[in-house]
Amino acid sequence: MSKEAQLSTYLEFLRFASVSTDSSFTPHLRGCAEWLKARFLKMGLKATIHETPRHPIVVAQNEHKAGRKSLLIYGHYDVQPVDPLNLWDHPPFEPHIDGDKIYARGSADNKGQILPHILGVEAYLAQHKELPLNITFLVEGEEEIGSPNLKPFVEKNRDLLKCDVVLVSDTSMVGPEAPAITYALRGIATCEIKIKGPSHDLHSGVNGGGVTNPAWVAARIGAQLHDENFHVQIPHFYDDVKALADWEREEWKKLPVQEKEVMEQVGVDALYGEKGFSYYERVWARPTAEINGIGGGYQGEGSKTVLPKEAQVKLSFRLVPDQNPERILDHVETWVKGLKFPGCKLEFKRGHSGKPYICNPKSPIMESTLACVEEVFGDKTFLIREGGSIPVIQTFKEQLGADSLLVGLALPDCLAHAPNENMSLRNFFKGIELCQKLLTALAK
Amino acid sequence: MSKEAQLSTYLEFLRFASVSTDSSFTPHLRGCAEWLKARFLKMGLKATIHETPRHPIVVAQNEHKAGRKSLLIYGHYDVQPVDPLNLWDHPPFEPHIDGDKIYARGSADNKGQILPHILGVEAYLAQHKELPLNITFLVEGEEEIGSPNLKPFVEKNRDLLKCDVVLVSDTSMVGPEAPAITYALRGIATCEIKIKGPSHDLHSGVNGGGVTNPAWVAARIGAQLHDENFHVQIPHFYDDVKALADWEREEWKKLPVQEKEVMEQVGVDALYGEKGFSYYERVWARPTAEINGIGGGYQGEGSKTVLPKEAQVKLSFRLVPDQNPERILDHVETWVKGLKFPGCKLEFKRGHSGKPYICNPKSPIMESTLACVEEVFGDKTFLIREGGSIPVIQTFKEQLGADSLLVGLALPDCLAHAPNENMSLRNFFKGIELCQKLLTALAK
Repeated sequence: MSKEAQLSTYLEFLRFASVSTDSSFTPHLRGCAEWLKARFLKMGLKATIHETPRHPIVVAQNEHKAGRKSLLIYGHYDVQPVDPLNLWDHPPFEPHIDGDKIYARGSADNKGQILPHILGVEAYLAQHKELPLNITFLVEGEEEIGSPNLKPFVEKNRDLLKCDVVLVSDTSMVGPEAPAITYALRGIATCEIKIKGPSHDLHSGVNGGGVTNPAWVAARIGAQLHDENFHVQIPHFYDDVKALADWEREEWKKLPVQEKEVMEQVGVDALYGEKGFSYYERVWARPTAEINGIGGGYQGEGSKTVLPKEAQVKLSFRLVPDQNPERILDHVETWVKGLKFPGCKLEFKRGHSGKPYICNPKSPIMESTLACVEEVFGDKTFLIREGGSIPVIQTFKEQLGADSLLVGLALPDCLAHAPNENMSLRNFFKGIELCQKLLTALAK
Repeated sequence: MSKEAQLSTYLEFLRFASVSTDSSFTPHLRGCAEWLKARFLKMGLKATIHETPRHPIVVAQNEHKAGRKSLLIYGHYDVQPVDPLNLWDHPPFEPHIDGDKIYARGSADNKGQILPHILGVEAYLAQHKELPLNITFLVEGEEEIGSPNLKPFVEKNRDLLKCDVVLVSDTSMVGPEAPAITYALRGIATCEIKIKGPSHDLHSGVNGGGVTNPAWVAARIGAQLHDENFHVQIPHFYDDVKALADWEREEWKKLPVQEKEVMEQVGVDALYGEKGFSYYERVWARPTAEINGIGGGYQGEGSKTVLPKEAQVKLSFRLVPDQNPERILDHVETWVKGLKFPGCKLEFKRGHSGKPYICNPKSPIMESTLACVEEVFGDKTFLIREGGSIPVIQTFKEQLGADSLLVGLALPDCLAHAPNENMSLRNFFKGIELCQKLLTALAK
């Protein structure tokens, strides 16, 4: 298949508006799953759509033979919401190419990182007719909402998904000339606090000063999350946190991208966070409490002198080994229940969660993967952790007994989850090459 | 004119979506002003639309004659925004009648309170052919955005608007059987704080814990407004606050509506505010710092693990004699400029403002007005303050040398500024009767 044809396949994949969190997008997820199935069938793999209570899972396999190593390749076809839409330079589901960059929601997270493996297997088959190992593709549609149905699916299909190792490209490189393999991921726990005050919006003149304002309660809750050193103040939050190893702290000081470059990437003039830890230590190996959304009262143009009836705070917690997300949500719930604001009721709602993950970064299979990456990219490859969460990695470890090879193809400035998400086309094509190398290396 | 015809005129008035803060509603304000002008012309008054940089002012007068008292009747035809629209039981600009109540945006604030005076003058003319005093109606379209163009208009048209006293119905009664005349109003000062962090929304996994989150900054700012006794913490905020008189504290303890009834009206199980003051003292005679809107990050269904690039806090301050709104905004600006959050920039934007107002509640004209109200409503009438702001009252005092008779026709549960705003039809018709009585009384 020509590079042009591979790129055109990528564009087709990106045009599906597969936003998993908002139910009005459901038909686009269905369409995307059907498209994937057809793609796998065309390559000569056996492909099946597995229904779930929400968005379907696509599984594709070659003919599995005894005596060969088994490789599971995991990815997801769902994407994050696109709002605020007005901050996109181009419509998020009409991919736009500019130089080495392709802009679209999902271009990096995760369509542009799972597709190189699909195209890599296709290219290998075109050249060799037969794959050197038993391959299973597992592509889900619920990663951005915490994969609620993948875990039960894996539990019920251990035989189908049986493998020696899992290959996942859903992390990122350290920089354009600094590929990386990730050996640990933060977990996640999310929740929402609704603050209900008066039975209706009040006039801030008529009642202001006499009644608790839910917007102020939202602010108080948000402000009480951290102390002055930016330590999380929720009791027992740090109980199970595993300390950083000295070699990790030393290793990350040597990364070619340091705080100055990070500041440029994110567009700030200062970094900030928990006292006593460097930027990488904070985002890779320390847990967080983050406000993902705070809202109450008038948000439009001009002013409205209202005392709103309700407000909300949406929180997420990034977790590190050995924190347990459900136990963390218990602690958060206890903390919220202890907050008292006269005339306001707090409603606590648990959201999705996923455990943190860590594996041995010095195992033989990790070392051979690292060699393949160095060969394809021609650059020294680093061993890093990752601040984001891929909860299913922990599920693979628990249910299939398999560690994951987390080989990121996206760049740090790919704007995953933000407007103008993008992917390097060079890395996309390197990924296709890498996949073919790995098929040979992992078969040994 | 029959009651049915008066009601039908009210319905026509309410159907104009005259939301002054949002520029997309401008044509509806124009239409409403033209409708008012036609209404005045039909009554035999001279009526003129005066252009302003934003929404027009309508002025109507009878033939002014020397040796008669002059009365200015003020009101506004603009209304508050309607959002959240989903909380309205009926469309806000399609008036709905249920028993004694009429539901629509503007039904109480202020269309249903200025119109009784228009219809009262019309009824008086129908009966007597001639008014006993020189009347000027002044109806503006910018009250809900702080009357930015009314003050310059009054300054430029002192001769046109010359009067002995001003009559305004834009306050409320204490309860259905407790009319009230208001002798003091709180002032207002509004502002907006924009918090700008990273150049784009960040992934809360990738960068969370490493970068200041503007939503958290919004929360911190909101939480720092007050201390634990709910005193405003902005330096110099209380410098010019006039202490409450003992007779006021005593008088308000006797009001037939007390904290229990207020709690029922607003739908809370506890009131809350500045320590050391009762509910009425807090909302009528103490200044406030209120969050009218707080917003940052994802507000939709489900979760989005984002670290937002920006957030905002919209504030309003209710002010009491002798606080000066511009001086208060100076203090707020100084306070905001002193707040430091690494990696975030704060932008401070002043909004509209209006001075607080107070007059002598025991003057002869106040006493004769009180007598008219008691006669029409048949109930003891109270002397109260009001927590809301009508900045133009202070302008009338300064520019025309005239005090205002603030005779509220709305009930405390009229839901001004909130969904399901409503007006008592009984009070609407009593208002028409009251206006006619006042024309005779004030002519003396």
